[in-house]
Amino acid sequence: MENIIMQPIGYVHNAVEGKKHTDWGKDVSFIRLKKEYRGGLMGMESFSHAIILFYLDKAKFIPEKHLQRHPQNREDMPVVGIFSQRTKDRPNTIGLTSVSILSVDETTLTVKGLDAIDGTPVLDIKPYYPVYDKKDASVPEWVDRLMEHYF
Amino acid sequence: MENIIMQPIGYVHNAVEGKKHTDWGKDVSFIRLKKEYRGGLMGMESFSHAIILFYLDKAKFIPEKHLQRHPQNREDMPVVGIFSQRTKDRPNTIGLTSVSILSVDETTLTVKGLDAIDGTPVLDIKPYYPVYDKKDASVPEWVDRLMEHYF
Repeated sequence: MENIIMQPIGYVHNAVEGKKHTDWGKDVSFIRLKKEYRGGLMGMESFSHAIILFYLDKAKFIPEKHLQRHPQNREDMPVVGIFSQRTKDRPNTIGLTSVSILSVDETTLTVKGLDAIDGTPVLDIKPYYPVYDKKDASVPEWVDRLMEHYF
Repeated sequence: MENIIMQPIGYVHNAVEGKKHTDWGKDVSFIRLKKEYRGGLMGMESFSHAIILFYLDKAKFIPEKHLQRHPQNREDMPVVGIFSQRTKDRPNTIGLTSVSILSVDETTLTVKGLDAIDGTPVLDIKPYYPVYDKKDASVPEWVDRLMEHYF
């Protein structure tokens, strides 16, 4: 046992409550920082995108169910390990999403495309640096099939 | 106070000890999973890249020093907030790096380009999906100057 203890830097506020929501790309979310982090977004208005790390507090990793599974429980997908898929039910339920920035003020980052429900704790915000993109990245064919409804 | 408790899924093993190491792109690192996650990498060999989330256990956020600062303490950079830069001394010291995959077996992911020292706890491994790249992302001019030595 080696516990790592974190605290939210703020919370997501949006109109998304349902778990079965899928059209995340269009949602506007407000990330409100705790008071002690006021000013921590200075300069963010010069970036077009940010990376949001959030804590999926409703998700839960059940080893016998999630260590290896079909992505999205689809039978037409191969069985793969938890670290080879992006599902939320992981050992540490950290969500990672790149979003576009709509506006910034002293305590609130307003973004589009965050796939987190209302009230989700936020762990970190990082500016998006396109130099870190992996332009030569390749994925197995099942990922293309999995993503075809989203892109 | 709302504590979020996590545990490492494994640890980084490499030859990097020094804090002043900068040439991370060439380093080979072994991410060894804990026994209970054996099999969690199944299918990862079909991906070229992975995203590693790790816990910077030596970093520490000191508000008066880090809430707003010059990136890399360089005077030729503007003062920006902690969430507008990628420095390690953040409220939750989570490192996020996309790496290339060299090999995979039941308990070990061997990667290139991880900027973490030997012994660093790993929080999560996710497959890299290039569809999530933001091809239209833009950054302020200081980021280009900051990055010019690395790319």
